[in-house]
Amino acid sequence: MAHIDLGVDEKKFPGINGPMVFRPETAKPLNELAETLLRGPHSLSAGERELIAAYVSDRNECTFCCSSHSAFAAAQLDEGMALVDQVRADLDNAPVSEKMRALLRIAGAVQVSGRNVTPELVAAARAEGATDVELHDTVLIAAAFCMYNRYVDGLATFAPDDPERYAAAAQRIVAQGYGG
Amino acid sequence: MAHIDLGVDEKKFPGINGPMVFRPETAKPLNELAETLLRGPHSLSAGERELIAAYVSDRNECTFCCSSHSAFAAAQLDEGMALVDQVRADLDNAPVSEKMRALLRIAGAVQVSGRNVTPELVAAARAEGATDVELHDTVLIAAAFCMYNRYVDGLATFAPDDPERYAAAAQRIVAQGYGG
Repeated sequence: MAHIDLGVDEKKFPGINGPMVFRPETAKPLNELAETLLRGPHSLSAGERELIAAYVSDRNECTFCCSSHSAFAAAQLDEGMALVDQVRADLDNAPVSEKMRALLRIAGAVQVSGRNVTPELVAAARAEGATDVELHDTVLIAAAFCMYNRYVDGLATFAPDDPERYAAAAQRIVAQGYGG
Repeated sequence: MAHIDLGVDEKKFPGINGPMVFRPETAKPLNELAETLLRGPHSLSAGERELIAAYVSDRNECTFCCSSHSAFAAAQLDEGMALVDQVRADLDNAPVSEKMRALLRIAGAVQVSGRNVTPELVAAARAEGATDVELHDTVLIAAAFCMYNRYVDGLATFAPDDPERYAAAAQRIVAQGYGG
């Protein structure tokens, strides 16, 4: 049971969906931010950006967001869920590009504190070809999921166990986006 | 020096202002979220909501955001900066209402992890009269500043030392809002 009465059936509106129905005024910019960061025109693919979101959500131990964005990443990466699982379990050895590895390390630093992003981490990503926009958006995606994760868990929303629920949500996101 | 070339004079566009000029696509929802949460119609005053923002930013050790939102709170609270300082230094004994104290405790829990918001913390706030919207918005303000703080520090933006800079920004925010 969520900490507040969201006014919806939580089983039908799991995770962030309930609070977004409860408070449409804040749902609008929250969805627009997700749409811009994760699905707007970009040199990183939507799958790569969802991978950053899944990675940060995992480190924040947010079951709903991690399951959701892992499914969204898997649906948009050629290597599917196997790659998402490898990145979450062992970033150092996961079969991603060196640029993505360096960006994910920056995201991991942001998850702890913005102050943990060192010039060395940034230089390592630049050495692999990361651009200013890619660096900016990696920091902001990671920071944004430190918000979404706390929002979802701070209200004690419901997270389904069934992976099919998240796979179905992935199909909707791929087809329709975040509605931002 | 920021980690990326923001394309502006950082002294003139300190903190979050530089990244917002650099990436207007994400600045728009970020400003709209701040405007809705901190200045929209509400049973908590703008000063009380800025106090939550300042409290969380302090705990995240984000100099720019903490100085900014402390000044914004002080400009909109009868008790001014003295109260902001007391809340930041010693919440248990600060002269705020018991409802605000309970909401600030929830914000402090969110700062660590959404999972730290317990039914007991929520019940304590409800016992002092906190509503569902107040609880929702306290969680989301705290979560949002876990994002803004990481964004500002994760890009290593410039934070002025001069309190007058923040006091001047407060006058602009009070008069014009966040432009969301």
